Amino acid sequence: MQDTSRLCLHTITTKSWSLERAIDAYAEKGVTGITVWRQALEGRDPAKVGQRIRNAGLEIVSLCRGGFFPASSVVERKERLDENRRAIEQASALGAPLIVLVPGAHPSQSLGTSREQIREGIEAILPLAEASNVRLGIEPLHPMYADTRSAINSMAMANNFCDQFDSPYLGVVVDVYHLWWEPALENEIRRCGASGNLFAFHVSDWRLPTEDLLNDRGLMGEGCIPIRKIRGWVEQSGFNGFIEVEIFSNRYWAIDQDAFLESIVQAYLKYV
Amino acid sequence: MQDTSRLCLHTITTKSWSLERAIDAYAEKGVTGITVWRQALEGRDPAKVGQRIRNAGLEIVSLCRGGFFPASSVVERKERLDENRRAIEQASALGAPLIVLVPGAHPSQSLGTSREQIREGIEAILPLAEASNVRLGIEPLHPMYADTRSAINSMAMANNFCDQFDSPYLGVVVDVYHLWWEPALENEIRRCGASGNLFAFHVSDWRLPTEDLLNDRGLMGEGCIPIRKIRGWVEQSGFNGFIEVEIFSNRYWAIDQDAFLESIVQAYLKYV
Repeated sequence: MQDTSRLCLHTITTKSWSLERAIDAYAEKGVTGITVWRQALEGRDPAKVGQRIRNAGLEIVSLCRGGFFPASSVVERKERLDENRRAIEQASALGAPLIVLVPGAHPSQSLGTSREQIREGIEAILPLAEASNVRLGIEPLHPMYADTRSAINSMAMANNFCDQFDSPYLGVVVDVYHLWWEPALENEIRRCGASGNLFAFHVSDWRLPTEDLLNDRGLMGEGCIPIRKIRGWVEQSGFNGFIEVEIFSNRYWAIDQDAFLESIVQAYLKYV
Repeated sequence: MQDTSRLCLHTITTKSWSLERAIDAYAEKGVTGITVWRQALEGRDPAKVGQRIRNAGLEIVSLCRGGFFPASSVVERKERLDENRRAIEQASALGAPLIVLVPGAHPSQSLGTSREQIREGIEAILPLAEASNVRLGIEPLHPMYADTRSAINSMAMANNFCDQFDSPYLGVVVDVYHLWWEPALENEIRRCGASGNLFAFHVSDWRLPTEDLLNDRGLMGEGCIPIRKIRGWVEQSGFNGFIEVEIFSNRYWAIDQDAFLESIVQAYLKYV
């Protein structure tokens, strides 16, 4: 099968390309969705970018990323809220139906305090998201990012977090890289789907050995994550949206990006 | 306070020292416990080493490490069992009351399969451990080691695992480095203590940024782990044994080990 009708790429995956180059290359390769990272929008009018993406035949899946709510001072936390509101406005102008939220954490305070600040942050920005018709997707991050990136580190925690709210505009982004180790993952994915909260699905792989905590993600199939099995759980939960390839990799960023894109498409067809 | 009466060091922490050098240096610094890594025993008679340690006034806290039960073939799994039996015999000769078990994982199979093989492994070696009066301590490892080192990645999982057995010879090793991120850690430590299963307590710290998944642990106080808070939970659960410093660190292994040992004692007094 050569079905790429649900294949989406994150612009960060081909970081060295300009947004325009990425749009053209993705469309040419049969990629059908794009998740735009905010840094790729710099110096551009998001409304025009949105139009250009749609003209190329691509669907905008999400804007990456908001969040990072915890901070050690009130002033900083307020700045984070303003930044998130700008992200919502950008998403709205771009035509992105979803913003991926990396929850955040601050090493000077307990994870419990950071979680409370994440809750306060969501509470503050959710009305604008609802008014703008932009959904917010909490992305639980691997526990190795609990120091500075996320105090929400499993699907169970993300589901519990969403239970505090009751909004169709707040849900969860499932990323196999962050969650593959979780013992109750299948149940928690089912729980998420049953609540209508499973908003997005990201794939990459866990390399052996992983040589960098941030930028050594693998191409699907070169690691130990049971991607296809997890995809099955996600689909059984009712999700039928895009499958998004999000790879941070010093090694892949350094190679020819056209060849990398071809490898991604092949790996998607073979291992996802 | 200068109370080091519960301070134990793992020989791996001062890896470049011979076991004899480590014993003398620890004793001289007022360290009172020692956890012996098996590689430090190479070419030595464990009974004589045990005597030497006791003569120096140190208490043997545990032998590190057994475990690594999962493997993709029956033959390999049998070899792992034999290796664990040798470790039990070594611990017995040394006079170590406890073996730390790193459970293991194999990337070619599901974590569920690896967990089942860990269960089978424990079942196979537990009778010898009981007969030898050597306790086995399961060490849950951080989820970033779920690829090749441990399919048991949280205190909750370790507690659930022990519930499958009902032996005073099987318990849990609590290491702040692996578990600090866990949302229900306090409750799970209490649960472990209430079952009489909390066998050992390891400390180090999580550096920011962590530059290597294996060998970039921090000295207590230089990272973001709430060590003293977790120590409190451990003691409230009834544990009053040694506090073991286990630091894998390319950066600390490269410096003068006497100076490093002094820093460890100071960090222990100040941050643990």
